[in-house]
Amino acid sequence: MLLVCTCVYAVLLILRCDYTSAIRYDPTWESIDSRPLPSWYDEAKLGIFIHWGVFSVPSTSFPPHGQVAWFWTYWKGDKLKVFDDYVKDNFRPDFTYADFAEQFTAEFYDPNEWADIFNSSGAEYIVFTSKHHEGFTNWPSKYSFNWNSMAVGPKRDIVGELANAIKTKTSLHFGLYHSRFEWFHPLYLQDKANNFTTQNFVNTKTLPELYEIVNAYKPEVVWSDGDWEATSDYWKSTDFLAWLYNDSPVKDTVVTNDRWGSDATCHHGGFLTCSDRYQPGVLQKRKFENAMTIDSIAWGFRRNAEIKDFLTTHQLIATFVETVSCGGNMLMNVGPTKEGRINPIFEERLRDVGAWLNVNNEAIKGSRPWSHQNDTLTPNIWYTMKDSAVYAVVLDWPMGTTLSLAAPMPQSNTVVTMLGYPGPFQWKARSSSGLDITILPIAANKMPCKWAWVFKFTNLLNV
Amino acid sequence: MLLVCTCVYAVLLILRCDYTSAIRYDPTWESIDSRPLPSWYDEAKLGIFIHWGVFSVPSTSFPPHGQVAWFWTYWKGDKLKVFDDYVKDNFRPDFTYADFAEQFTAEFYDPNEWADIFNSSGAEYIVFTSKHHEGFTNWPSKYSFNWNSMAVGPKRDIVGELANAIKTKTSLHFGLYHSRFEWFHPLYLQDKANNFTTQNFVNTKTLPELYEIVNAYKPEVVWSDGDWEATSDYWKSTDFLAWLYNDSPVKDTVVTNDRWGSDATCHHGGFLTCSDRYQPGVLQKRKFENAMTIDSIAWGFRRNAEIKDFLTTHQLIATFVETVSCGGNMLMNVGPTKEGRINPIFEERLRDVGAWLNVNNEAIKGSRPWSHQNDTLTPNIWYTMKDSAVYAVVLDWPMGTTLSLAAPMPQSNTVVTMLGYPGPFQWKARSSSGLDITILPIAANKMPCKWAWVFKFTNLLNV
Amino acid sequence: MLLVCTCVYAVLLILRCDYTSAIRYDPTWESIDSRPLPSWYDEAKLGIFIHWGVFSVPSTSFPPHGQVAWFWTYWKGDKLKVFDDYVKDNFRPDFTYADFAEQFTAEFYDPNEWADIFNSSGAEYIVFTSKHHEGFTNWPSKYSFNWNSMAVGPKRDIVGELANAIKTKTSLHFGLYHSRFEWFHPLYLQDKANNFTTQNFVNTKTLPELYEIVNAYKPEVVWSDGDWEATSDYWKSTDFLAWLYNDSPVKDTVVTNDRWGSDATCHHGGFLTCSDRYQPGVLQKRKFENAMTIDSIAWGFRRNAEIKDFLTTHQLIATFVETVSCGGNMLMNVGPTKEGRINPIFEERLRDVGAWLNVNNEAIKGSRPWSHQNDTLTPNIWYTMKDSAVYAVVLDWPMGTTLSLAAPMPQSNTVVTMLGYPGPFQWKARSSSGLDITILPIAANKMPCKWAWVFKFTNLLNV
Amino acid sequence: MLLVCTCVYAVLLILRCDYTSAIRYDPTWESIDSRPLPSWYDEAKLGIFIHWGVFSVPSTSFPPHGQVAWFWTYWKGDKLKVFDDYVKDNFRPDFTYADFAEQFTAEFYDPNEWADIFNSSGAEYIVFTSKHHEGFTNWPSKYSFNWNSMAVGPKRDIVGELANAIKTKTSLHFGLYHSRFEWFHPLYLQDKANNFTTQNFVNTKTLPELYEIVNAYKPEVVWSDGDWEATSDYWKSTDFLAWLYNDSPVKDTVVTNDRWGSDATCHHGGFLTCSDRYQPGVLQKRKFENAMTIDSIAWGFRRNAEIKDFLTTHQLIATFVETVSCGGNMLMNVGPTKEGRINPIFEERLRDVGAWLNVNNEAIKGSRPWSHQNDTLTPNIWYTMKDSAVYAVVLDWPMGTTLSLAAPMPQSNTVVTMLGYPGPFQWKARSSSGLDITILPIAANKMPCKWAWVFKFTNLLNV
Repeated sequence: MLLVCTCVYAVLLILRCDYTSAIRYDPTWESIDSRPLPSWYDEAKLGIFIHWGVFSVPSTSFPPHGQVAWFWTYWKGDKLKVFDDYVKDNFRPDFTYADFAEQFTAEFYDPNEWADIFNSSGAEYIVFTSKHHEGFTNWPSKYSFNWNSMAVGPKRDIVGELANAIKTKTSLHFGLYHSRFEWFHPLYLQDKANNFTTQNFVNTKTLPELYEIVNAYKPEVVWSDGDWEATSDYWKSTDFLAWLYNDSPVKDTVVTNDRWGSDATCHHGGFLTCSDRYQPGVLQKRKFENAMTIDSIAWGFRRNAEIKDFLTTHQLIATFVETVSCGGNMLMNVGPTKEGRINPIFEERLRDVGAWLNVNNEAIKGSRPWSHQNDTLTPNIWYTMKDSAVYAVVLDWPMGTTLSLAAPMPQSNTVVTMLGYPGPFQWKARSSSGLDITILPIAANKMPCKWAWVFKFTNLLNV
Repeated sequence: MLLVCTCVYAVLLILRCDYTSAIRYDPTWESIDSRPLPSWYDEAKLGIFIHWGVFSVPSTSFPPHGQVAWFWTYWKGDKLKVFDDYVKDNFRPDFTYADFAEQFTAEFYDPNEWADIFNSSGAEYIVFTSKHHEGFTNWPSKYSFNWNSMAVGPKRDIVGELANAIKTKTSLHFGLYHSRFEWFHPLYLQDKANNFTTQNFVNTKTLPELYEIVNAYKPEVVWSDGDWEATSDYWKSTDFLAWLYNDSPVKDTVVTNDRWGSDATCHHGGFLTCSDRYQPGVLQKRKFENAMTIDSIAWGFRRNAEIKDFLTTHQLIATFVETVSCGGNMLMNVGPTKEGRINPIFEERLRDVGAWLNVNNEAIKGSRPWSHQNDTLTPNIWYTMKDSAVYAVVLDWPMGTTLSLAAPMPQSNTVVTMLGYPGPFQWKARSSSGLDITILPIAANKMPCKWAWVFKFTNLLNV
Repeated sequence: MLLVCTCVYAVLLILRCDYTSAIRYDPTWESIDSRPLPSWYDEAKLGIFIHWGVFSVPSTSFPPHGQVAWFWTYWKGDKLKVFDDYVKDNFRPDFTYADFAEQFTAEFYDPNEWADIFNSSGAEYIVFTSKHHEGFTNWPSKYSFNWNSMAVGPKRDIVGELANAIKTKTSLHFGLYHSRFEWFHPLYLQDKANNFTTQNFVNTKTLPELYEIVNAYKPEVVWSDGDWEATSDYWKSTDFLAWLYNDSPVKDTVVTNDRWGSDATCHHGGFLTCSDRYQPGVLQKRKFENAMTIDSIAWGFRRNAEIKDFLTTHQLIATFVETVSCGGNMLMNVGPTKEGRINPIFEERLRDVGAWLNVNNEAIKGSRPWSHQNDTLTPNIWYTMKDSAVYAVVLDWPMGTTLSLAAPMPQSNTVVTMLGYPGPFQWKARSSSGLDITILPIAANKMPCKWAWVFKFTNLLNV
Repeated sequence: MLLVCTCVYAVLLILRCDYTSAIRYDPTWESIDSRPLPSWYDEAKLGIFIHWGVFSVPSTSFPPHGQVAWFWTYWKGDKLKVFDDYVKDNFRPDFTYADFAEQFTAEFYDPNEWADIFNSSGAEYIVFTSKHHEGFTNWPSKYSFNWNSMAVGPKRDIVGELANAIKTKTSLHFGLYHSRFEWFHPLYLQDKANNFTTQNFVNTKTLPELYEIVNAYKPEVVWSDGDWEATSDYWKSTDFLAWLYNDSPVKDTVVTNDRWGSDATCHHGGFLTCSDRYQPGVLQKRKFENAMTIDSIAWGFRRNAEIKDFLTTHQLIATFVETVSCGGNMLMNVGPTKEGRINPIFEERLRDVGAWLNVNNEAIKGSRPWSHQNDTLTPNIWYTMKDSAVYAVVLDWPMGTTLSLAAPMPQSNTVVTMLGYPGPFQWKARSSSGLDITILPIAANKMPCKWAWVFKFTNLLNV
């Protein structure tokens, strides 16, 4: 009952947000945090994260240092021998990270094709790396002379072309990732050496860029990162967010995350991301996002990946439904090649998830957490609800003829169905609580989908 | 009954072949054709074809001109605008095909890893492109100065390293593909302009190479190609084959195909390949091989491939069992990247096929065609036999509760089982011919495998 | 007489300058201009200018657009077809200026060798392009992330290595050229679009760089350029110069030029350069410098230069002595190759000038203008003086037996000699003014030098 | 007297040669050697040698291993550390010599401009490296697939374009250098390992090429090299020469050198070259050629050359006149850059020599050796003669007023003049032999030329 009220309240907030632009936010966390999250985001549940940059040129990592996008700092920051050897073995002497940029050719980058693939996954929004920790801007920034995608490498406005394709070819929301810090920017290193008592880097580089991309590309997600070495004061985060919420061209619909400073992460901002692959497993009070990767090892494309590194579709759906059950969105990452292709293995996974959602999206999009997240009796079953229906996503088909659930409290008029399958299922109440559903064998070719199956309950007692 | 005899006869031939090296072949087709095919090949059923070369650098094609490995001739021979535009748009002016070689870096080429992946597929042999129509030799040939893998590009003996890995890490048979002609070799073009009345190219280039690779790498398959513009006389094919069968280091175990001249293809040599993707659909009198591709469009890796271009595992298995039923082997092609990786999508397919064979290889390896190839009553069912058992590979699981087959003639003691599944199936004889097998629903998670299922029949009447 | 006094006065100023560091300058032109020029500079007479940068990679120009260092703006600013065609014909599509940087390899850059060559010319100082209008810093600037010589191209601190070699291997003074503006820096273009009412570029890029190089490399010449589109107010030039003269590590010895803003050039600062190749031909009130080039067409090395483009040694010496006679220094430019070599044709010219100075430097180094600059009777003769001697530099050897000069007023004890040649010359006073020197034939192999000859007069009347 | 007769005889031979094409030569050295040298060659005296190839890309050497064109064998044959280090320090790992070819861009190669520069030197013929020991053919050879200038690097028919420019823009004779062996050609190495008992390399590579270039480009000089490891039998040299002299398109005018086998050099063929920079210093019985270099260290362009490495114009002329006096031609080498430019320092030297010949060619072109080559009394004076005049080329202008010569025997009507200078010189007979010429001082600007001066004697006694 409580959650239904909350839902109504949320709708009211949105209305207020849309119609009453008179509300203004102060550059304080208290005020910033008071802004309700635009409702589209909570409803969306699934987003696609895309990591693309100069790191897509070496496109290589060596677990346990698996982060492709961290190639530069593994190599020149941490001075890991395996990275140094790789460069020494494959490139001319004195090769620098900047030298990789030339080979970021992007000749097959077709944003319309990307849009089609992302759309096929059933996702509702995307978040694209406008700039990662390497500092290379995927748009022709005024603040990154000759270290941007128009001057070297692609020779294209990567961000602008993608924004246009997403907005004109799909109904997905367009979002941008932006790294606060840059590992090797000398002005950042200088501020850091000054214990962040100076702000030359913030004032002349990273903050001007942020205003530039919001004004130019009107992202509805501003996904901040790379904040952790300094506080939100250093980064001037609340100033930016107050502008974003009060005066920016996306003030009414934009959502942001929480990585706005070492004091902000997991506490302030919009939705919480806390740490990468954040999957608390229990219901969260505040909206969160589980940013995770299809390639279990890295965010950027790895040329040396093996099939065992990729999450199976079953694993992706398991992670997704657990996340949604606990109140989160999942931001599922793909790394395009330096040429600009979504590798077929990623495309296969995205289309598989889309095929699954095609049958089961009723239980996902626009749903909200139920009072129970997972069943206490049978493992690997996660609940959502929408309107007055409750949905149990069953990740492992029962081995026997009964599916026993403890959480749903049936009434006599309770109806149990499976999404995409004809006819109701027989059930009987369990003595203590919950119910037993009778599962007759269904031949594989009669199942509505693969990987996971959604039982829908109407007229439950405890909703 | 007849086939059992043939089988015994074949074993006798092999014994003769192993113990009587006194038999010598003349350089005539009559004599060459009289050599029995070493038995390992017929038993193997599944091979892996690998196309790798300088064409793996552009690694691009534009259907309907989809052949990646034909990039050079589409571009400079047929002068197709789309290929010319691609080069003009992405490379500096006057770029030549030879200029691609530098980028054939092969830095991730790990033949042991390839060996592991090929082995995982259940295949019994591989065939690797030692030289394709571009003329680039993947070994340091004496006859291809500065146009070979040691001088430019990989700077490695690609063939030699692979031969070593296959031979030491697996029990697979190692084979080599070799193109007779080279599109743009000036000596070939000169011979051709002379209506093949001169043989400078054969004498100084392609034939010396062939002797070189057989002596150096001892391939058990010599897979000739690129022969079609001239006769086997021009190519001096019977001379070579007589040497191969009489005096070469692989004389006892080597198998060859039929592409030894415009007069030879589909008629002479060892097994027949006739045309690419040769799948006659009916029983063949002579051993054949269906050389086909996992990427439906090309043999070389295509950087611009989409998931829809790749055959599904179901399609691969369907093609395979049809081929085996008709007496053929299937040579399933993968195209590595210029860096030397088997793309995960290929690896996924290979391991899926391997997983299927892990359950069902009893019906495949060492099997022989049955009197019936496919069932006449229910489509998409293909038969094999081994010893006295008959196997029906069912590509589509029955929608109803009965699987009706016309070909098998049951007796009272006929037993029907499914490979990988416990217990026999009930059946009853059909009035006319064949039998009806009762198919009770089996839950997906109880099925022994995916994609296709093998019913085994013992004690059939007509075997 | 006047000039003698001036000279004494200058010496006093220098003394004051050296010993009284208590004098401080205000950031006004009046105050800045009041600083006396450190005496070493006036005495030096000859400097070597070196233009090296990313422009040394295309290293090409097409007269009348001959400026190699202006390649970028000819191509992308003026959009001249001939430059666009050159790039299109030789580089891959969408090639950018930034792409040239990779080939700025500098593998043969040996600053000690440069120092030796510069020293051999008899020059007393050098001026090196720390950054030209392209914005590429030849040192690892904190303000030019990934567009500097440590990050791309040479991977070396070009400026630092040269400073070190010049200072440790020679007694030459080390100077740095620095361009105020950058053609394509977006912040500059923005300030410019704002009619220079904003100063983002000055504050965050060009001025911080200037402080950086003075502190790091302690140049004794700061040679500003690229100022002309804005005033010295925009460039904050007097602020910088006040710091340079008051507090910088080179405050006592540094000299600067005049290119500090559209209002400053030819009016304010240190010595005047006015325009390139500034050669007024008459005595100047204020110290000036004639910055000119050995390759008559360009400052940067031109790979497509022909011998006819290079000034002959005779032309170089003629320009030099005219410049010195009128009170100027000559800054003679060489353009190294992208590999870092001084082309032999430049080296030949520099060593030729050095050979000439080896004989004749008495008339040059430390000299001052005489009352007459050139002779009024015989052309191509230029005067200098030092102590009480007067020197006539004769550019064309007399065709006859008499060299008639109008300017020197002989007395009975006047002595005429030729530098490097034994014994005095006979002369007699001309009726009107001046004197006739008797020139007996001297065989070519008895001449003290080539190209120009210096007659020295002592005990003249009008000195 | 004797020599005059010889001269007449030579003319007769030439006439016979031109008019009697019926004479045929056998493939024996005796017959080959019997062919008179076409007269144009002896008259020409000065040729230009041009070394250009893939070696012009590294364009570097390290004395004492100074030969740029030998880079490959210093590096990979002799395995000299300094070359290996150079490659390791500047190129990516596993860089091969073949990898250099891509950078042989030739973008500034303008054969008409070359023709103009060669012509300006006063030379009468050129010899161009069609193929050096590296095996790279500067024309699109049928026998060098993908290792020729059309397939990689220039993408042009370098030889063909130069032949056309020389023949249409100048009256110079066009000649081609061709290397018999190739350091690293596997077929050559195989023949060599077989002690040259096999001739696969000769038959399939180097000899077919030689026929190809003679037929295609009709060179009037065939300058063989790289012969020394095997005899002329191995190289089939007399077969080729017999064809060249009997049936080739240049049979009447072609000249060849002597490097046709270890038994031939300095003994057989056309003119003798014996060793590089062959300058015997005494009269030779047989026509020879002094092939030498302007850059004293190398034949190919050295990017790391210094001015001290280049012969001065005086040195060039001294070498030239000594060579001519002794009956030789001088073949003066220039090495273009990989871009295709004649460096200005070479152009300066060539034009200087041309300026000298412009005054003094009467003593050179068409001259023949005199009875004396150099003067026995005064050093550095070399004689030639033409018709009945004798010429003394004086390399050092006399320090005193007398030039004493022992060789010329004056008669009363003997006249002594200096080429380019008005009027006769006074002389008197010396008591013993010869004469003393009175040398009055001549001002440098009245001399007819620089570097060397030619005294002409008519009506001498001993002519």
